[in-house]
Amino acid sequence: MTARIWEANAGRAFVGRLETGDDLVQSLEAVCVEQDIRAAWVSVIGAVRHASFAYYEQDEQRYLELQSDEHHEITGFVANVSMREGRPFLHAHATFCAATGSAVGGHLLPGCEVFAAEFTIREMTGVELTRTPDEVSGLSLW
Amino acid sequence: MTARIWEANAGRAFVGRLETGDDLVQSLEAVCVEQDIRAAWVSVIGAVRHASFAYYEQDEQRYLELQSDEHHEITGFVANVSMREGRPFLHAHATFCAATGSAVGGHLLPGCEVFAAEFTIREMTGVELTRTPDEVSGLSLW
Amino acid sequence: MTARIWEANAGRAFVGRLETGDDLVQSLEAVCVEQDIRAAWVSVIGAVRHASFAYYEQDEQRYLELQSDEHHEITGFVANVSMREGRPFLHAHATFCAATGSAVGGHLLPGCEVFAAEFTIREMTGVELTRTPDEVSGLSLW
Repeated sequence: MTARIWEANAGRAFVGRLETGDDLVQSLEAVCVEQDIRAAWVSVIGAVRHASFAYYEQDEQRYLELQSDEHHEITGFVANVSMREGRPFLHAHATFCAATGSAVGGHLLPGCEVFAAEFTIREMTGVELTRTPDEVSGLSLW
Repeated sequence: MTARIWEANAGRAFVGRLETGDDLVQSLEAVCVEQDIRAAWVSVIGAVRHASFAYYEQDEQRYLELQSDEHHEITGFVANVSMREGRPFLHAHATFCAATGSAVGGHLLPGCEVFAAEFTIREMTGVELTRTPDEVSGLSLW
Repeated sequence: MTARIWEANAGRAFVGRLETGDDLVQSLEAVCVEQDIRAAWVSVIGAVRHASFAYYEQDEQRYLELQSDEHHEITGFVANVSMREGRPFLHAHATFCAATGSAVGGHLLPGCEVFAAEFTIREMTGVELTRTPDEVSGLSLW
């Protein structure tokens, strides 16, 4: 077991709602900038008018971008906030369900257009999570 | 960025388990009534014997109801509690996986019959989240 | 409504990252052993090189094991920690998305090989969650 682990303090807790037409990832990052949130865990429930996400090709070390113009319910969401290039960065994965109930998903990219989105941001203090390039995975990790 | 955002205080934390045959949504709402929980974030892990969920047709502004009589594992769950018409209301979306692993999901309706369900409810205090009709989306939002 | 419910205190909060090649379930359990975490709620965002999960056949009361050698993004994750046979036990369900975006998932088994995984563990104190066999479901429940 080779986990890196830090004990954090519970910081502020925010709850909010994005507006129809907002960019899901960029708007949550803007909230973090505005509130000076540097580390957090985030949850979202809502729906999108357009989904923009990616699958990471682990061997090729590159993101394969996927799009869906269907309207989707967000039925799974896992995300955190850390610092990347001096700014709060939202790392988010989501599951999206369509009119038949069928599910797709991946790593969220800018371009997810909100229909409605309720969120909570749980700040963590006393830790400094800074993303830097990781050679093993090709990802930007803390 | 047009988010509405409130800072909340961390209230009580509950952990519990529903029984086989319980209605997933209604039972969690009953817990909130009993414990006087008016705002919270909720997580569930478990399985259902019947899934009852919906997809919101964003243009038509109506819910399309979907049912599944298969048994399902809950593999994604995002939910919160707010007040609607004077009572605690659970807004929940879930991903359900079947015997082949395949996933469906959506906005949960009454009628999800619990096989087993472990939950946590994290109360938020100092905020008043009250759902009222929203003309843009046709939804009931806070 | 027949929920069993306990009020818990917020304990320590941990944030961390597993390494490429780690076993997802076993590594998180090892963290709990190391940190003496006996009850917690857990979230993970990341990707796996191999997925090992199960679907519980509710009538037959047995797990059907499923495997996927595809690389997957974790797009939904719900999990908690309790005690089982004297050790911290991670009960986790996840949704996994593939290169086409398509989703599968279920109850996680040892054998999920981490590509990258960021986690948070929110300890709950003041409760004792101990799994014991449950006759109604055939599961080990608290």
